[in-house]
Amino acid sequence: MIRVKRLLLDILKPHHPNVIDFSTALAEKGNYQVRLSVLEMDDKTETLQVEIEGESIDYEQIREAISEMGASLHSIDGVEVENSAADTD
Amino acid sequence: MIRVKRLLLDILKPHHPNVIDFSTALAEKGNYQVRLSVLEMDDKTETLQVEIEGESIDYEQIREAISEMGASLHSIDGVEVENSAADTD
Amino acid sequence: MIRVKRLLLDILKPHHPNVIDFSTALAEKGNYQVRLSVLEMDDKTETLQVEIEGESIDYEQIREAISEMGASLHSIDGVEVENSAADTD
Amino acid sequence: MIRVKRLLLDILKPHHPNVIDFSTALAEKGNYQVRLSVLEMDDKTETLQVEIEGESIDYEQIREAISEMGASLHSIDGVEVENSAADTD
Amino acid sequence: MIRVKRLLLDILKPHHPNVIDFSTALAEKGNYQVRLSVLEMDDKTETLQVEIEGESIDYEQIREAISEMGASLHSIDGVEVENSAADTD
Amino acid sequence: MIRVKRLLLDILKPHHPNVIDFSTALAEKGNYQVRLSVLEMDDKTETLQVEIEGESIDYEQIREAISEMGASLHSIDGVEVENSAADTD
Amino acid sequence: MIRVKRLLLDILKPHHPNVIDFSTALAEKGNYQVRLSVLEMDDKTETLQVEIEGESIDYEQIREAISEMGASLHSIDGVEVENSAADTD
Repeated sequence: MIRVKRLLLDILKPHHPNVIDFSTALAEKGNYQVRLSVLEMDDKTETLQVEIEGESIDYEQIREAISEMGASLHSIDGVEVENSAADTD
Repeated sequence: MIRVKRLLLDILKPHHPNVIDFSTALAEKGNYQVRLSVLEMDDKTETLQVEIEGESIDYEQIREAISEMGASLHSIDGVEVENSAADTD
Repeated sequence: MIRVKRLLLDILKPHHPNVIDFSTALAEKGNYQVRLSVLEMDDKTETLQVEIEGESIDYEQIREAISEMGASLHSIDGVEVENSAADTD
Repeated sequence: MIRVKRLLLDILKPHHPNVIDFSTALAEKGNYQVRLSVLEMDDKTETLQVEIEGESIDYEQIREAISEMGASLHSIDGVEVENSAADTD
Repeated sequence: MIRVKRLLLDILKPHHPNVIDFSTALAEKGNYQVRLSVLEMDDKTETLQVEIEGESIDYEQIREAISEMGASLHSIDGVEVENSAADTD
Repeated sequence: MIRVKRLLLDILKPHHPNVIDFSTALAEKGNYQVRLSVLEMDDKTETLQVEIEGESIDYEQIREAISEMGASLHSIDGVEVENSAADTD
Repeated sequence: MIRVKRLLLDILKPHHPNVIDFSTALAEKGNYQVRLSVLEMDDKTETLQVEIEGESIDYEQIREAISEMGASLHSIDGVEVENSAADTD
């Protein structure tokens, strides 16, 4: 079974919701650990680097959650996936 | 259950209270560990980087405590949240 | 027996499939762990550094999988092989 | 209970007492570990970075000790405090 | 008994055999672990840094293997040898 | 009881005694570990960084030993002292 | 008893013997571990950094061995000595 274990995302978001509510909303989508750093800030927006770690991350849910909070996912800068199934293709 | 485990704050404060009393006041809000570094200092103010770690940090209490001491929270530069509940959304 | 334990690949790929599907497709070829970083991005393509680790990596399968997804393998930047057989040549 | 666990101090001192006697005098104030580095030295003074670690550091005692040795505390560059009490405010 | 435990080699090789076959051929000479990095690449050749680790590396065999694959050993940039015999000279 | 655990010394010495005899002479003053690096060398002298570690370093003995070998102690660049006594002042 | 545990040597040697034979010859003088790096190479000579570690290194033997191989010891860049005797001076 293949699982996404880590995502490194580059996100642009408005000031609201704040970074704490934003991180919390992403962590709520699974048993995730979310580490957020603010890279740049201007009058209306913040550029964030967000690292999400978990046993099995549902990327589509993360993408929707980002979008619903009025933020936009600029790029996926890193991915870690693991295939730990005993039987391979 | 989602918990804030770490905050990295950029704070501007007047010289009084001093950094020891300031750190202590923040740690008092919970079983927190507070690490404070003075980044810049001028005649009237100090720019601080304050890292707060704890099992579950109450951000609103921290924000109020900063404000009550005459300091202003410039930005939240980092957040770590963890969702360790067994049942997810 | 000689096994390839690690590959570090420099890959150019179109935006589709996205990096998550791309990583997943590579991990599917064996019990691999895949770490992908996006180094550059322009209108049509992304330059990737992809690190693959596993007990025994089948390079030909990896090469075909990259090719089938419309991406091109620029170079193999690193290799680790291990000879753990008791009897040597 | 809130305890100061670490202080990072920027100190200007005359050449006498020397850095060994100076460190020793600070360590005497409690069961402290004192690490001192000389950052600059000129004809009459030395600029020191002094790190003090302990289970519970008494800042006022440290400040007095510095002053009694003819040195001046330029700034507190770092503080670590810990609240390890079970019952919080 | 004195054993060579590690070699760091600077090698120039043609594009064929590729770095995977090249690494494998070196590892085959003993129970070696081979880590290869491509430092430069031009139209006809690749400059490699090759690190070989093993319990007891036979340098002459390595040198011949490199030569048989049409590559040339530019320099030995590092060596580790260990004398673990109980009786010394 | 307060003990000096580490000294970092900047020393200028003539070429004789050589750095091995010099280090040995310092280590002889106690159960010390001495790490010496040569920072600069000219026709007649060598600038050394000497780190001494021990359970309880006698600075005066070290200073005399340096002097007796015709070298001069330029500065004490670092000190670590520890107060591990149960009863404090 | 005072023992030399580590030497860091700057050596100029002709191309022959090669670095493997050179390292081996030094390791033979005791139960030493020898790590050699080639820092510079020109037509006739190689500048080496050689690190020797052992329980008790005999510097005079090392010096002679270097000399017998036609190389010259430019400088001793580092020394570690340890005094682990129970009774001190």
